[in-house]
Amino acid sequence: MRYLPGEAQQLPGNRAALADYQAGHFLFEVSGGVATLTLNRPERKNPLTFDSYAELRDLFRALAYADDVKAIVITGAGENFCSGGDVHDIIGPLTKLDMPGLLAFTRMTGDLVKAIRACPQPIVAAVDGICAGAGAILALASDIRLGTARSKTAFLFTRVGLAGCDMGACALLPRVIGQGRAAELLYTGRSMSGAEAERWGFFNSLHEPEALLDAARAFAQGLADGPTFAHGMTKKMLQQEWNMGVDEAIEAEAQAQAICMATNDFHRAYHAFVAKQKPEFEGD
Amino acid sequence: MRYLPGEAQQLPGNRAALADYQAGHFLFEVSGGVATLTLNRPERKNPLTFDSYAELRDLFRALAYADDVKAIVITGAGENFCSGGDVHDIIGPLTKLDMPGLLAFTRMTGDLVKAIRACPQPIVAAVDGICAGAGAILALASDIRLGTARSKTAFLFTRVGLAGCDMGACALLPRVIGQGRAAELLYTGRSMSGAEAERWGFFNSLHEPEALLDAARAFAQGLADGPTFAHGMTKKMLQQEWNMGVDEAIEAEAQAQAICMATNDFHRAYHAFVAKQKPEFEGD
Amino acid sequence: MRYLPGEAQQLPGNRAALADYQAGHFLFEVSGGVATLTLNRPERKNPLTFDSYAELRDLFRALAYADDVKAIVITGAGENFCSGGDVHDIIGPLTKLDMPGLLAFTRMTGDLVKAIRACPQPIVAAVDGICAGAGAILALASDIRLGTARSKTAFLFTRVGLAGCDMGACALLPRVIGQGRAAELLYTGRSMSGAEAERWGFFNSLHEPEALLDAARAFAQGLADGPTFAHGMTKKMLQQEWNMGVDEAIEAEAQAQAICMATNDFHRAYHAFVAKQKPEFEGD
Repeated sequence: MRYLPGEAQQLPGNRAALADYQAGHFLFEVSGGVATLTLNRPERKNPLTFDSYAELRDLFRALAYADDVKAIVITGAGENFCSGGDVHDIIGPLTKLDMPGLLAFTRMTGDLVKAIRACPQPIVAAVDGICAGAGAILALASDIRLGTARSKTAFLFTRVGLAGCDMGACALLPRVIGQGRAAELLYTGRSMSGAEAERWGFFNSLHEPEALLDAARAFAQGLADGPTFAHGMTKKMLQQEWNMGVDEAIEAEAQAQAICMATNDFHRAYHAFVAKQKPEFEGD
Repeated sequence: MRYLPGEAQQLPGNRAALADYQAGHFLFEVSGGVATLTLNRPERKNPLTFDSYAELRDLFRALAYADDVKAIVITGAGENFCSGGDVHDIIGPLTKLDMPGLLAFTRMTGDLVKAIRACPQPIVAAVDGICAGAGAILALASDIRLGTARSKTAFLFTRVGLAGCDMGACALLPRVIGQGRAAELLYTGRSMSGAEAERWGFFNSLHEPEALLDAARAFAQGLADGPTFAHGMTKKMLQQEWNMGVDEAIEAEAQAQAICMATNDFHRAYHAFVAKQKPEFEGD
Repeated sequence: MRYLPGEAQQLPGNRAALADYQAGHFLFEVSGGVATLTLNRPERKNPLTFDSYAELRDLFRALAYADDVKAIVITGAGENFCSGGDVHDIIGPLTKLDMPGLLAFTRMTGDLVKAIRACPQPIVAAVDGICAGAGAILALASDIRLGTARSKTAFLFTRVGLAGCDMGACALLPRVIGQGRAAELLYTGRSMSGAEAERWGFFNSLHEPEALLDAARAFAQGLADGPTFAHGMTKKMLQQEWNMGVDEAIEAEAQAQAICMATNDFHRAYHAFVAKQKPEFEGD
């Protein structure tokens, strides 16, 4: 029997709308299916706190079920992306914790990265100015990174006596910029310039500071207007195949793409092509 | 007892000669141990069809046993490499299949990539003009890629409502050009220019269009004139170690290289060196 | 109960001092916590022999327990890094070995790479001139590579009839310079120029020949003056996460970083920051 895609179904209890989400520790707005998340303590270069970590983690977990958000832009207010965990707000209290408390913290920050990578929406980071520590990890955990020439990205954990292995950095960064360059940044904590970041593949492209956010939103809008179910599958498989053998990855993709061929968007695209029209994707 | 390499043996039932192979859906010729496979429907930019997919898969499976082909060039006729799966010939019929039928198709295309990677011969793709969809995967699955500045390589599955995970793309492309650049190409389906492809490591080098095929053949001939048994081991181990730990990979290479040290080619190289001559490799 | 880092303890039987190590087959000196290992047969471009392989392996194994060496520079005397396994000293005898003997050799060379990667000290290779065969692997197995424009790095195993899979090359090189570029170097054995090596991420930076060793030592000194326990954890996790899934890597880093937050260096850094001073790290 020929496969006929069905009507879009709401799976009860498993869907959420986030357009009206009231953020507590940052700005969050949704327009045209694109959510813009703005870290917003510009006078301190948008540091993270225990509370903002936790809220970000919970928001990205909720995004996994949001059907009104199709792509996400992460940015920072006031010419900086994010200065990472604040020394007074984060580092100081950490020096007073026992070991279970320390692990609870590192697991919370790790859970944020897991949630960023587990939600189906592609994430575009718009990086200007300072992008440091956990802020650099937020950018690294995103799918696409747009930057500026003047930006400075630093995995500076080593500067406070810690290791470069924070929130997945030793796994993620080598796959983005290569093992040798990643090792240098993680051992030294030095800043990567915008030009280096583009040359090494950390940034997908460089933009003028005043054009950066529009470029990131336009990129995200292009994805939100596309086959978003399929984009979610692309994102899932980029993670899923991370440490598979090639043959197993090929079988995994055979199954994943067969699922996508059973969507209305695939049929829409074909019929639009035959009619010499531009397809209107709906994400189902 | 000292190891003495034996004479080359023909393992009955496990060898094939492909010099006289009569291709049905493309051109195939063998010269000097180098096979040139030319996709040959230039008026439509060399699309793939159900039948050509299947024949390519079967041919690469046969190449695993061919002892008269030592290296392979894949190219396209008429200034384009390959436009991928044809919308009318492939996409249309796919919209009429049930789920087992869809999976049978995605597995067939995946099996082509598995066969390309499993045969011991190094494969050199010569990419000019359009290199799109499954065509881009053919290039990606090759070992070496030579291109032209005017070439356009696009993983455009998303344009027909599908995911970027097709035929192993989410596993292979990030290892070639980095995770961030791969994500952009797979999410957007945009064309990668020849200059980008060279800068990012997708193309090993750029050539003038009229010099491209000769360059690819010369590269392949260089490999075919080398220690081809060892080349097959290099190709095998590049796959085999894909998702091994480093220590396990080092042990795997200790075993693989010990095998190569028991070949006549290794002995030939040593004796040629002592005699201040160029070694004549024979692939045994 | 709050975690309070203890005093540095000497674990009996598990520590070694290597400042007075008397090397037999190369030069080894320690200054300011930085060891400089110099391959020193400049008249033959610093080849490796059976004995120097074994001594290097044993030295790097001992370095895992050395608490007076915090970072390592590897270099070669007289304008070349290392010409690899010598044809007369190594290749000739190999042609006379039986299979257990061959495997014993490939495992010994592999054990050297395992030991280089297992010791906690970051390793900076200073590469000028010829860097070939096993010499190229020594550089590849290092954490950081500084080079010169005139250097020539060649994985030339194929030139003696062998495969590119030697001492971990098929695992390591693709992660440093990308799968496509690695394939070309491993199949052909051709030299990578200094400019290519920097552009592709093999070298972290290029230096004038006369400034190379000082640059490598300064880099290593910067690391030796930093939080060396944490650096050892960074090195460990870069290996440990090589073939983990991303989520598992994030959990592994949560544990590893929690360990580092229980060090005195982390506390020192915080208190130095509060006092607006530069932290003095001690590696405990």
